[in-house]
Amino acid sequence: MLIYLAVAVETLVVKMSFIEYASRISKIVDEFIMNTIRGIPSTLYEAALHYLRAGGKRLRPLIVVLGARIVGGDEDIAIPGAASVEVLHTFTLVHDDIIDKDELRRGVPTVHKIWGSDMAIVAGDLLYAYSYRCLLRALERGVPVERVNKAIDILTDAAITVAEGQALDMLLPSMQNVSINDYIEMVKKKTAALFASSIAIGATLAGGDEKLTAILKESMINAGIAFQIRDDILGLIGDEKTLGKPIYSDLREGKMTLLVIYAYSKIDDESRARMKRVLGNRNATLEDLQDVANIIRNSGAIEYADSLAEEYALKAIRLSEEIESRDNEALQMFRDVIKFMVKRNY
Amino acid sequence: MLIYLAVAVETLVVKMSFIEYASRISKIVDEFIMNTIRGIPSTLYEAALHYLRAGGKRLRPLIVVLGARIVGGDEDIAIPGAASVEVLHTFTLVHDDIIDKDELRRGVPTVHKIWGSDMAIVAGDLLYAYSYRCLLRALERGVPVERVNKAIDILTDAAITVAEGQALDMLLPSMQNVSINDYIEMVKKKTAALFASSIAIGATLAGGDEKLTAILKESMINAGIAFQIRDDILGLIGDEKTLGKPIYSDLREGKMTLLVIYAYSKIDDESRARMKRVLGNRNATLEDLQDVANIIRNSGAIEYADSLAEEYALKAIRLSEEIESRDNEALQMFRDVIKFMVKRNY
Repeated sequence: MLIYLAVAVETLVVKMSFIEYASRISKIVDEFIMNTIRGIPSTLYEAALHYLRAGGKRLRPLIVVLGARIVGGDEDIAIPGAASVEVLHTFTLVHDDIIDKDELRRGVPTVHKIWGSDMAIVAGDLLYAYSYRCLLRALERGVPVERVNKAIDILTDAAITVAEGQALDMLLPSMQNVSINDYIEMVKKKTAALFASSIAIGATLAGGDEKLTAILKESMINAGIAFQIRDDILGLIGDEKTLGKPIYSDLREGKMTLLVIYAYSKIDDESRARMKRVLGNRNATLEDLQDVANIIRNSGAIEYADSLAEEYALKAIRLSEEIESRDNEALQMFRDVIKFMVKRNY
Repeated sequence: MLIYLAVAVETLVVKMSFIEYASRISKIVDEFIMNTIRGIPSTLYEAALHYLRAGGKRLRPLIVVLGARIVGGDEDIAIPGAASVEVLHTFTLVHDDIIDKDELRRGVPTVHKIWGSDMAIVAGDLLYAYSYRCLLRALERGVPVERVNKAIDILTDAAITVAEGQALDMLLPSMQNVSINDYIEMVKKKTAALFASSIAIGATLAGGDEKLTAILKESMINAGIAFQIRDDILGLIGDEKTLGKPIYSDLREGKMTLLVIYAYSKIDDESRARMKRVLGNRNATLEDLQDVANIIRNSGAIEYADSLAEEYALKAIRLSEEIESRDNEALQMFRDVIKFMVKRNY
């Protein structure tokens, strides 16, 4: 066990080998997106492009491109897919922010905060359609129609799964005795599915074989779970400036994060009652939220969540080691992206 | 002019030749939809299927199937496309009802009324994804991948255009001096685009040539405009029981319907002021709304709207007369559907 942990720590030292490449891909993808998402009325398009202009990690587009490269493809043919998943992701952010009543994202006011919930609903819907429009443009780059259709199939599955995950996330707080297993099932759908689909869309556009694509997907499901657990942790102890959004909003919304589920199982009745009074209570004061954050911290939930996230990340990396690729640089970046997903501060 | 009108009246006698066929297609399409849209959590799926179970005219699926038949194809291969546009249409209803705060649709409480706006947003998103899932299933029926891809392209254009139209519909009330032209442009996007895409998806799945498809689309754009004008009229003078939804909700929402735009241009300042006080006012009483409805009726707006709708419908029919098809029955039903679109009471 001690040896295993030592390996774990060694393996998960984050190397930002991909930062420069990610930044280059991000520019290309953004240009592609801005050239694709154009139209009137301008109010609608301003609302739709708001988060895309405000920044973001562009992690999913990078994963699409790496998927194409790992199976031996060219980065060029993956750009429409990369744009497509980023636009789909952005659509989910716009709608989720309405649902969670969040007011800040990427350091700017949320779409519904500026344009109202009604316009935000339509702006999200518009982005959704454009995620398909982006992907269809792969045909212009000579990608065979069969591959484009297969990628559309994957995108569609992802969209269905993400909606199911979002609904589960909303339903968990009203369920009795939510288990860690329930949480993982929810996160697989809400978060991991789009990461898995990203690598699969890249691999598919590049004509990768099914077995290799399946391993890449499985790796990204594990990495995606780790990513969401890290998200839960950052939502409690992250730095608001670095994150570009307020912490404690999960608590205010009453979300069943891994931290809450773990804390519930470890604390005494009195603390549990204090937590239940605050979670999901829109009138909770900052003091109330800090009190609950302390209860959670003192329960050991952060350490537990950290180690569980690491376990999933290590599984993702081990899966990546089953992969053979002529593009060693891409494979190395893929592993470094996984490490970043579980160790990031933003 | 007199002769022209006589022809018009003659041409627009509604023959419900398609009723039996529509009912058969409706059953097949519903079965296809119910077999496709399955999953968990059940709350989400119940919300998503709510309107589809509550009834509806299934006009768009019928148009998809007629599109396929008119270009010489089989109705079977059009069913996935027919399901796809009905599901897309249903998604727009779910989101529109949130935006318009409508409480009744197809005789049942709206999705957001039962499950809340948050779940309704996600249920709409889920349906959106399933509209692609339905269309992709055309591959199972041996439709060549190129045609399916082209149909996906049309569906995506429709989704973008409908979102633009919905945004325009929301923005018009805050614009100064909305013209009938502005209204028609909005309606083309909000309503006519999906009708045009329906016929085009059917024709495309069946391998119809581009020129023929273009005429069919143009015909449906005109019929779609007529359909929406009729919708505006029914929203003022329709029978609530037959409609399955309350009248006057356009007035309460302050929508710039054709009737309102026309009345504004014809009435005196005092009446205009009375209208402006009520339109978009959520505190307006039924008496207020009835007063405004009377002002609109007395302005001659209904007669104007009726004749404009008829003009568009006649243009649609004239375009259909340019079409040659071996399937005369389908072409006849297509024309009868157009007449129904402009003369319907529900």
